[in-house]
Amino acid sequence: MGEIYSVINHDFVLKNDASVLISDLSIQRGYGIFDFFRTINNEPVFLEDHLDRFFYSASQMFLDIDLNRSEIKQLIHQLIEKNNIADSGMRITLTGGYSEDGYSIGKPNLLITQSAFTFNPEIFDKGIKLIMFDHQRQLPSVKTIDYLMAIHLQPFIKSHNADDVLYYHENEITECPRSNFFIVTQKDVVLTPSKNILKGITRKKILGLSDLDVRETNVTLEDLKTAKEAFITSTTKNVLPVFEIDGITIGNGKTGSITSGIYQRICKIKER
Amino acid sequence: MGEIYSVINHDFVLKNDASVLISDLSIQRGYGIFDFFRTINNEPVFLEDHLDRFFYSASQMFLDIDLNRSEIKQLIHQLIEKNNIADSGMRITLTGGYSEDGYSIGKPNLLITQSAFTFNPEIFDKGIKLIMFDHQRQLPSVKTIDYLMAIHLQPFIKSHNADDVLYYHENEITECPRSNFFIVTQKDVVLTPSKNILKGITRKKILGLSDLDVRETNVTLEDLKTAKEAFITSTTKNVLPVFEIDGITIGNGKTGSITSGIYQRICKIKER
Repeated sequence: MGEIYSVINHDFVLKNDASVLISDLSIQRGYGIFDFFRTINNEPVFLEDHLDRFFYSASQMFLDIDLNRSEIKQLIHQLIEKNNIADSGMRITLTGGYSEDGYSIGKPNLLITQSAFTFNPEIFDKGIKLIMFDHQRQLPSVKTIDYLMAIHLQPFIKSHNADDVLYYHENEITECPRSNFFIVTQKDVVLTPSKNILKGITRKKILGLSDLDVRETNVTLEDLKTAKEAFITSTTKNVLPVFEIDGITIGNGKTGSITSGIYQRICKIKER
Repeated sequence: MGEIYSVINHDFVLKNDASVLISDLSIQRGYGIFDFFRTINNEPVFLEDHLDRFFYSASQMFLDIDLNRSEIKQLIHQLIEKNNIADSGMRITLTGGYSEDGYSIGKPNLLITQSAFTFNPEIFDKGIKLIMFDHQRQLPSVKTIDYLMAIHLQPFIKSHNADDVLYYHENEITECPRSNFFIVTQKDVVLTPSKNILKGITRKKILGLSDLDVRETNVTLEDLKTAKEAFITSTTKNVLPVFEIDGITIGNGKTGSITSGIYQRICKIKER
């Protein structure tokens, strides 16, 4: 592997030199959006889905991109070719840009970065423990750069020997900071929160699986107590079984057959 | 005025070159804190109060500064001398630093910037209009860089011909994005929200005024209806009368005598 490049607006710059001025509204006011997808064998996975969401996020945040979709795709493909990191994670970020007064949106800065990433199937077998926290993300449907609470909660997560935090608010479960949440009921119905969440791409693929009774609905704290299985989904984790939430074992505390089945099918369409 | 410098960690760099790598956690995850104070005649105003809050914010966000208080003060004074902008706003920012994995806190980056700023007393006479919005900032007592909602609401504010937004949640008023909020009751008691807010330095000075009945308490939506006067306070605005909230006139829609009195006393101790 040679030197790694990033894209800053129209330019390819060495990753170690990739910088923005500190007047950027992301640094001044935490204002920006992004999306994150994987490449496998130098091919972007579900790129159209991620670009759909990227443009949706940009529009919701009033960030005007001066590149159109095909120009952004071209930059992505050029970066893939230049870096030649076959299996990777790629992040496209759009910041609030250089702000004259440190408060108003400027001309957004587009940043594209790439890092080696290979999915490790061993994580599936281990399962994870979650700890719950009462919090509702602001502008949840938009993939903003706001992970303030998630990072602030890292010591809280560690102190509970948990792997991640599960947000809930007013008796309704929403999501983990970087994953969507699902449960399987006693009747083998798969439920996932319908609102106040970021709509993940892996979540979308699961909703599209045929021969599976999967429903977007409200998932309450009570639903957890009777759930047979639970799992989270994300671009990097695919499908990850949840064995314990707030110290309470989910189902029999092992990977259930529905979760396994979904995992295998998601891997099949993703890890080609 | 010559070239303007900023501080990046221990170094003085030209403002137009002041940059950080895009792996900084402020850009990646909106993670950082700051404080903002003024200089008048090259003298920082209420610097100790701002540094108290800066170190409090840093500690709440688990950001370890490798400079102590007197070293930061020295950098501030060196920058003031170097730039020689007699009347200015100075911002000290501490970001989450360069993150290995784009999620974990790194070694924080310290940024100090300075821009010309002179208080314009004319803004006091004009008064302002506020529009209310149901929102509770996350980690409200910490001066984080999170102004996502505030900036997202700019078109909403404009569409209501308002000057700024006033946050409330569950019937309680909290604050504006960059100012604290006060009302004056019919009995000439000054009330300001006590919790779920950022504790402003100008607010603190008002709470310290003798010969004034000022109380930190809960301020409800009902309290607005009977308020005789209302005003907001901040480092750059000092004291600004509020004439209208959500289209409803406060008191007689003019600057009240209590607000005027507070304004004059705050200016006296600040605009020396």
